[in-house]
Amino acid sequence: MKITPDHIQSTNKSREIIHAREFNFLAENLEKRGLNVESLIQKLRDLQIAIPSWALGTGSTRFGRFSGGGEPSTLIQKIQDVGIIHALNRSSDSVSLHIPWDIPQDYEAILQTAAEVEIGFDAVNSNTFQDQADQELSYKFGSLANNNKDIRDLAIAHNKEVIQIGEKLGSKALTVWLADGSSFPGQHSFRKALNNTYESLQEIYRELPKDWKMLIEYKPYEPYFYSTVIQDWGTSFLLANKLGEKAFTLVDLGHHLPNTNIEQIVATLMTEGKLGGFHFNDSKYGDDDLTVGSIKPYQLFLIFNELVAGFEETDNPSPAWMIDASHNLKDPLEDLLQSVEAIKLAYAQALIVDKKALEAAHSSHNVGLGQEILQEAFRTDLRPLVRESIRQSGGAISPIHSYRELKVRETLIKERGKDSKASGL
Amino acid sequence: MKITPDHIQSTNKSREIIHAREFNFLAENLEKRGLNVESLIQKLRDLQIAIPSWALGTGSTRFGRFSGGGEPSTLIQKIQDVGIIHALNRSSDSVSLHIPWDIPQDYEAILQTAAEVEIGFDAVNSNTFQDQADQELSYKFGSLANNNKDIRDLAIAHNKEVIQIGEKLGSKALTVWLADGSSFPGQHSFRKALNNTYESLQEIYRELPKDWKMLIEYKPYEPYFYSTVIQDWGTSFLLANKLGEKAFTLVDLGHHLPNTNIEQIVATLMTEGKLGGFHFNDSKYGDDDLTVGSIKPYQLFLIFNELVAGFEETDNPSPAWMIDASHNLKDPLEDLLQSVEAIKLAYAQALIVDKKALEAAHSSHNVGLGQEILQEAFRTDLRPLVRESIRQSGGAISPIHSYRELKVRETLIKERGKDSKASGL
Amino acid sequence: MKITPDHIQSTNKSREIIHAREFNFLAENLEKRGLNVESLIQKLRDLQIAIPSWALGTGSTRFGRFSGGGEPSTLIQKIQDVGIIHALNRSSDSVSLHIPWDIPQDYEAILQTAAEVEIGFDAVNSNTFQDQADQELSYKFGSLANNNKDIRDLAIAHNKEVIQIGEKLGSKALTVWLADGSSFPGQHSFRKALNNTYESLQEIYRELPKDWKMLIEYKPYEPYFYSTVIQDWGTSFLLANKLGEKAFTLVDLGHHLPNTNIEQIVATLMTEGKLGGFHFNDSKYGDDDLTVGSIKPYQLFLIFNELVAGFEETDNPSPAWMIDASHNLKDPLEDLLQSVEAIKLAYAQALIVDKKALEAAHSSHNVGLGQEILQEAFRTDLRPLVRESIRQSGGAISPIHSYRELKVRETLIKERGKDSKASGL
Amino acid sequence: MKITPDHIQSTNKSREIIHAREFNFLAENLEKRGLNVESLIQKLRDLQIAIPSWALGTGSTRFGRFSGGGEPSTLIQKIQDVGIIHALNRSSDSVSLHIPWDIPQDYEAILQTAAEVEIGFDAVNSNTFQDQADQELSYKFGSLANNNKDIRDLAIAHNKEVIQIGEKLGSKALTVWLADGSSFPGQHSFRKALNNTYESLQEIYRELPKDWKMLIEYKPYEPYFYSTVIQDWGTSFLLANKLGEKAFTLVDLGHHLPNTNIEQIVATLMTEGKLGGFHFNDSKYGDDDLTVGSIKPYQLFLIFNELVAGFEETDNPSPAWMIDASHNLKDPLEDLLQSVEAIKLAYAQALIVDKKALEAAHSSHNVGLGQEILQEAFRTDLRPLVRESIRQSGGAISPIHSYRELKVRETLIKERGKDSKASGL
Repeated sequence: MKITPDHIQSTNKSREIIHAREFNFLAENLEKRGLNVESLIQKLRDLQIAIPSWALGTGSTRFGRFSGGGEPSTLIQKIQDVGIIHALNRSSDSVSLHIPWDIPQDYEAILQTAAEVEIGFDAVNSNTFQDQADQELSYKFGSLANNNKDIRDLAIAHNKEVIQIGEKLGSKALTVWLADGSSFPGQHSFRKALNNTYESLQEIYRELPKDWKMLIEYKPYEPYFYSTVIQDWGTSFLLANKLGEKAFTLVDLGHHLPNTNIEQIVATLMTEGKLGGFHFNDSKYGDDDLTVGSIKPYQLFLIFNELVAGFEETDNPSPAWMIDASHNLKDPLEDLLQSVEAIKLAYAQALIVDKKALEAAHSSHNVGLGQEILQEAFRTDLRPLVRESIRQSGGAISPIHSYRELKVRETLIKERGKDSKASGL
Repeated sequence: MKITPDHIQSTNKSREIIHAREFNFLAENLEKRGLNVESLIQKLRDLQIAIPSWALGTGSTRFGRFSGGGEPSTLIQKIQDVGIIHALNRSSDSVSLHIPWDIPQDYEAILQTAAEVEIGFDAVNSNTFQDQADQELSYKFGSLANNNKDIRDLAIAHNKEVIQIGEKLGSKALTVWLADGSSFPGQHSFRKALNNTYESLQEIYRELPKDWKMLIEYKPYEPYFYSTVIQDWGTSFLLANKLGEKAFTLVDLGHHLPNTNIEQIVATLMTEGKLGGFHFNDSKYGDDDLTVGSIKPYQLFLIFNELVAGFEETDNPSPAWMIDASHNLKDPLEDLLQSVEAIKLAYAQALIVDKKALEAAHSSHNVGLGQEILQEAFRTDLRPLVRESIRQSGGAISPIHSYRELKVRETLIKERGKDSKASGL
Repeated sequence: MKITPDHIQSTNKSREIIHAREFNFLAENLEKRGLNVESLIQKLRDLQIAIPSWALGTGSTRFGRFSGGGEPSTLIQKIQDVGIIHALNRSSDSVSLHIPWDIPQDYEAILQTAAEVEIGFDAVNSNTFQDQADQELSYKFGSLANNNKDIRDLAIAHNKEVIQIGEKLGSKALTVWLADGSSFPGQHSFRKALNNTYESLQEIYRELPKDWKMLIEYKPYEPYFYSTVIQDWGTSFLLANKLGEKAFTLVDLGHHLPNTNIEQIVATLMTEGKLGGFHFNDSKYGDDDLTVGSIKPYQLFLIFNELVAGFEETDNPSPAWMIDASHNLKDPLEDLLQSVEAIKLAYAQALIVDKKALEAAHSSHNVGLGQEILQEAFRTDLRPLVRESIRQSGGAISPIHSYRELKVRETLIKERGKDSKASGL
Repeated sequence: MKITPDHIQSTNKSREIIHAREFNFLAENLEKRGLNVESLIQKLRDLQIAIPSWALGTGSTRFGRFSGGGEPSTLIQKIQDVGIIHALNRSSDSVSLHIPWDIPQDYEAILQTAAEVEIGFDAVNSNTFQDQADQELSYKFGSLANNNKDIRDLAIAHNKEVIQIGEKLGSKALTVWLADGSSFPGQHSFRKALNNTYESLQEIYRELPKDWKMLIEYKPYEPYFYSTVIQDWGTSFLLANKLGEKAFTLVDLGHHLPNTNIEQIVATLMTEGKLGGFHFNDSKYGDDDLTVGSIKPYQLFLIFNELVAGFEETDNPSPAWMIDASHNLKDPLEDLLQSVEAIKLAYAQALIVDKKALEAAHSSHNVGLGQEILQEAFRTDLRPLVRESIRQSGGAISPIHSYRELKVRETLIKERGKDSKASGL
């Protein structure tokens, strides 16, 4: 299925009057506060969030998987799905591939399909946390961190191959999520695992094209349950600093211990110019991979508040944005549309924060006022602004409602069947 | 493979002298403290820990599964594996079956095999957290708690069937781990889900034979990530109280929020006579299902300290003991042998706590002394006592070393192949 | 200082036009959704949140205390401060006293002052977590849970005295926050401490007037660091059930382990008719006692969503509402005004949830839609509605801004001095 | 009171025979495992743990303080108390002072007293988390991180003064625990606070004598409840790296989020040569400041396992060891004796780990064996070895029992009274 401008127009029609009324009222209010609405809209239009290829099918937990229907079973179909999202919200103009789940067979066909739906290729992701069917050496006890040099070499070679694939597609970054760790005290040496990892990353880093970045993810636990080699931002930052100026830290919102102040980590990384990218999702307990903004929307806003301020006040290069979620219960496309909307809403809230007043509150140590200024932005209902930005980009005023009205899922099921299954978790 | 008395004797031989020296020294020390070593040994011999049928194969995480070898692929083979454990440690005289993974085809054969390896049948476990291949209605959005009565009825019928299977095998308890919950605010109504669950459990409870118990497990999250219907001991206790005197709470060590004082929960449940059973494992982050005692051995001791005191001072009926772990990296049989050893060690430590001195410390509010009395028990090396208790029961002085020396795993791989796969997680 | 209607009018004047514009736009939107705005306003006006007497001065941490100024140093002054809040927001018509910090010397004077500022007396709070200057026996090792009967009797007598004081003032509930616990394994017996507590509470319960409630608070840790006798809602609920129909559980938002699903606890307690009261605050790490809504506003909304649904669908009696915060950095009165505003906002959001649509989403297991319905309510900017409800009650359109414009704190400092110090934490 | 060799001998007498029997048995066992007992004893004797001056009196929580008796009210008395500990356990040959609580008035007297009881001066600690009585500018909203340069300068000057005091006493390190942070989103700018802190530390660092170290502590929360400027090891490490080779990270066991793998942090810091010091204590929930080893003894062992391995295999300079606890319920001297004992026990356990076998297990990915090797060390009862090491150093076989038998507390109460109060928390 392909979403056409006609589709968009037809579903927008019923919303236009209400939307115009709400947007005009809001715009007037914002202008009164001294904000430039046109500029806000442009910034919102510019924010593009990549869609990961593995988030287009039904996810699972270790306890099981409850299938959805109409899942994309080929890379072409995955790109088409991202195309559907992008046609609806004009906010997701790239896909992030996961190798080896998505190794292109026919690059030309892939690139053509992508071009047709106006989709580019964001960071490519390597996978050394699973063994492939024909793999002789196993990653069971680690890959880049493994004591066994042959296994490390296998994992290094895989990462280099991922870079090569990415180059052919126009990607500009390699994301390394290293699951390596241990489940029991005594399983391995922390120091050796760290040193092995550093040396392995060095070898991969050397292969990195000049205009590429290496994004190093961190995570405290899972799939191992006692330690992870790159357990926190500090370890990722340490490695990125040693590797060089093309290496950066990537923040996944779900990869933190309980109660972590993530927005401060974001601020610290930007201060040091080392925030390389973001994996958006939400969570209550661990790496729950829930819809962005569904659990802690205020935290999401506070993170964007740091991002927006950091863009203006630091030299941190523009980070890669991506959703990283797992859709065990919801239609993946609905979930992704909700996630992108939540991200844009938080971004809009951060954009209207009265920064001068905030700085004045900081200087005068007026704690209550500082809180109030942030809450003022958060409590303002900016959905009409986000909707207008999508509308102006040619998208649907309410992407998720258009999605439902257009019966996209039903059509996909018809096209692909009830039991098609996407590769991924 | 079957472990014979000859096997045991042959591997014990090399350990006998050292063991005797260590045991005699310890026994003398314990007697000096006024402890009756013979009685301690008898208590240790009496403690039997059931092995769950699903813990005999390689476990997985949602990120993948790294196979082991020689896994039991039939129920008969699973019982034989438990037989191997029991022959080695004389401490695991029963198996806990999981339905539908382990539905017996030929009861007579099953019972005969079990009798041959001296294994009985502990609590039976129902499973409504997965859909079966031919299942018409799905548990995707809940089973006993589902708003849809047809789905609830299906889940109730399944539980009743599990009871019937258990009756044929000689089980005396049904364990209900209800995964039902929600991953997003707004997914369902907490109150309706709780009420539905209560009504469903009532129907199952009515089917319960007179001399059976219903064990109700609780867990804060996973496989759902916003709420679980039976989220904590309080909810389980509430349901057990309403259901009646055959209903009890089951504690799984991994099913708690960070920093929970589990030993106090145990004490509270025993005070109220509602501690029905235990799932032993260990964890650092969540329901990590690691080897018992591998992460927090002092907590394990403190729990046994409550259990031992509760046995003596409350009317709580004797609980069902079971290991519940997932073996992603280790040989499952090695892991289970380590777990049983850790449990017996903690039990032994709890048995030698100087309770009179402890009560005196409580009365005089001597906090430092109270701590010291517990640490005195915990710091004493009681492994020789545990070894002696197993030896006297006809088992191996060091079960895990005998297991390795007898090359059990290698034999099982030869018998069953490298790629046999056990049903389970 | 006393706030007069003139004060209110004078500061409202500059806001009236903007407020009317915003409120009218919102009201129209709400009516379009089928909501009765008048009825919403009435419900908001009816919600009254008690102010605790100990939250009117500067709080401290164990590391120190940084004074504010103009703190109330007598009970009369405390009541006057609550009067200031109430005059501004018309939403805090009662004070919750803490004994012995606030033992009235002259009941008549107290009652008269309270009447003058239209303040009543909410639940009275006992304190057995500190020793008083002249106290012979110490609560160092516990009060109601203490092994020493004389100490228990002292604590029981104190609670009875608190009831008597409350009766003279018109209170209708006793709140028992029992700090008793232990900081080390081995310090005391969990079971004895629980039994002692139950017996002590029974004695106090017997003294409870017919139309009173006993509200039993729970908390996992602090001031003790290994265990607390009433560690969770389950323990409080167990005690409340045993004590009788006048005993209820009180939920303090800060008294939970990391990641606890508090809204589910609220739902469960209401299902059982045992939710007795609420202590509002916010927190990121532990019992941080921060301004309501300053950290997790969505959680606050989800809690109110359960409360509103519970009011309509259960027989749970109307709970006691109170703020319980500690103001280490902010002006306490500003903080309390912010807190009440956040509570009313969350209540308003919960009131506009489309319950029919939500139930339909539940029935059809439409997870994405269920989330959307809640977010729709949360994302709507309802501040104009809350402001209108206060305005109609005779309060300030924006209480905190009026507070600042009226220079209340400056006046209080002039009246009371910079170094006045309120009793409390 | 001063403990003399006669005191030691008199209380050792009754323990000598039993101790010799136990030690000899253990020594024989250890030698059989190929360990050099003499060398183990020497290492244990060499390990000296500094006592903080603020841990000699009764601690408090924000809810209150329950006095003990006989507390040291002068610096001289504090040093005498450390002398008592050291005389008993020969393991605490230095005190760590906290300025301004312990500003020496008469250096000569202080140094003489210290020499008499064989006590030196470990790291000096600055305090900018409280205002002093006569302080014009307040640290309420931050010190080294404050936006206000005058306040920063005050805090810098204080740190410089602390260095000067330390120099006169022979200290070689400055410990900076920077409490600065925020309790509400919007209170301050993370980036400015971090930059201010870095600049302030630079100024202090410049003042540091050549042979001194600067130890930078980190902590996630408390006394502020939304953010702390130096929130984790990553931030401390970042600052230490920028400051230079005399700057190091200090690890306090209680300063971590729930479930943090602290032993891995230790390993990482040693890999990078940046582990500067340790504050020992134990905790279940937050910065509970409980007796070392009283809650998580296995974690303590795992940390020492990293330390011992790091000593041998990295260039990390020898760290400063200190206890940092708060004694709310116990006699502080008893608590400190228990803590030192627990540290030495964990050190001893780490020393007997079979490192060759462990490396072999790592190489062969034998996970179960790796666990076993660590547990073998942990489960061995090494108390006789620790006792022997103290005995050989001239201390008491069981320091805490000698302490009780010598009625030290009773004597101190007689000498100093029941109501003496130590400065500190």
